[in-house]
Amino acid sequence: MNTPLTVNFAAGAGGPWRIERIAACRGESLAPAARLDIVEGRQPVATDGFTWQLRGFTGELRYTTSPERKALVAVQAPLGRAEARCAALIPIRKNAAWWDLAQDERRTIFEERSRHIAIGHDYLPAVARRLHHCRGLGGPFDFLTWFEYAPEAESAFDAMLQRLRATEEWCYVEREVDVRLVRVDNEK
Amino acid sequence: MNTPLTVNFAAGAGGPWRIERIAACRGESLAPAARLDIVEGRQPVATDGFTWQLRGFTGELRYTTSPERKALVAVQAPLGRAEARCAALIPIRKNAAWWDLAQDERRTIFEERSRHIAIGHDYLPAVARRLHHCRGLGGPFDFLTWFEYAPEAESAFDAMLQRLRATEEWCYVEREVDVRLVRVDNEK
Repeated sequence: MNTPLTVNFAAGAGGPWRIERIAACRGESLAPAARLDIVEGRQPVATDGFTWQLRGFTGELRYTTSPERKALVAVQAPLGRAEARCAALIPIRKNAAWWDLAQDERRTIFEERSRHIAIGHDYLPAVARRLHHCRGLGGPFDFLTWFEYAPEAESAFDAMLQRLRATEEWCYVEREVDVRLVRVDNEK
Repeated sequence: MNTPLTVNFAAGAGGPWRIERIAACRGESLAPAARLDIVEGRQPVATDGFTWQLRGFTGELRYTTSPERKALVAVQAPLGRAEARCAALIPIRKNAAWWDLAQDERRTIFEERSRHIAIGHDYLPAVARRLHHCRGLGGPFDFLTWFEYAPEAESAFDAMLQRLRATEEWCYVEREVDVRLVRVDNEK
C-alpha cells in the first residue's frame, strides 16, 4: 500500500475536472485555467497546451502513529466515488522555520497542538483525500493534497479548512492555493 | 540549512573519486566502474560514458529529536575536509514491511531498539556523512548515504557499519551496496 505513486496535476484546456475557481490563500496564486488532468507516472505530461503542472508522489505518513492510522483507515473513503463530483487541489509550501524543526517538534505542533489528524478525522468518510509529497522535486510547493467529496459536503469541507487554517501549524505555511473543481468527464 | 539539495552520483570513467571496490551487502550489486562524479543540481548528468547514476535529495531528518540533533550538530564534521580522502557511498532500499509501519513504529525500531542515531554519534567527528532521500524518485533505492573519513578512520567506519547491520532496523533492508572510494582529484 505504500509504494510511491507519482502523480502529475496538469492544468490547461483538457482533462475530466473543470476548474471552478483558484484562490490564493497565502502567497502567490496559480494561473487561471479551464480544466485539470491527473496523470499517474513519472513522465511529465507533454507541456503543450498546459498552463501549469505540479508533480508529487505518495508515500509513508510521516507524523501519524499506528493507533491514529488504524482509526483513519477504519472510516476513510477511497478516491473515485461516483457521488464525489467535487474536488479540491491544495498545494502548500511551508517556511524554513518549519523545516528547521526536528521531527519531534514538528509532530508536537502538527498533532498535539494543532490536531491536524483529529480535525481531518471529523470529516471522514465524506471527504476523501490523498497526500502527495513534492519537497525535494524542485517545484514551488512541498505538498499537494487532493480532496474529493459530494456537492452536499462542500460546506463541511470548507469548515474543515477553516479549522486547519486557524491552527499553530498553519503559521508555518508560506504559500497555499485553493483550487476547486467539478468532475465533467461525461460532458461532450 | 534544510533547503533540499539534489545530488547526482554518476559512476563511470570520470570524476574525482576512484572506486576501490563495490560490494553487494544484500540483494543485487551495482556494475563495476572506475570513477565517481558527484554533481549537484536537478538536471541529470549526461548519460554518455556513465555506468550508473543515482540521484537523491537532502532534506529534513525524519526520526531525530531536537536533543538528539543538538548532540549531533555539536560534534559532527562537514564534508570536504582535506584529510578525509576516503569515502563510502551506501545506497539502501528498505522492504514493504518497513514502509507499512506507522511513524511511531519506525521511530521505535530506528532508535529506541536499534540505536541508529546513538551508534552514528560514536563515530563523530571522524566520519562525516550526508543523507540523500530517493524514495519516490523511481530509482532502485530509498536512501543514498555518503560518508567521508581519513584513511586511519577506516577500521572505525567498518566497525560502525557492522554494528548498524546487526540491528533490528537492518532486518528491513532488502538491498544494500557498499561502494568504497578514494579521492584522486590531484591525479593527472
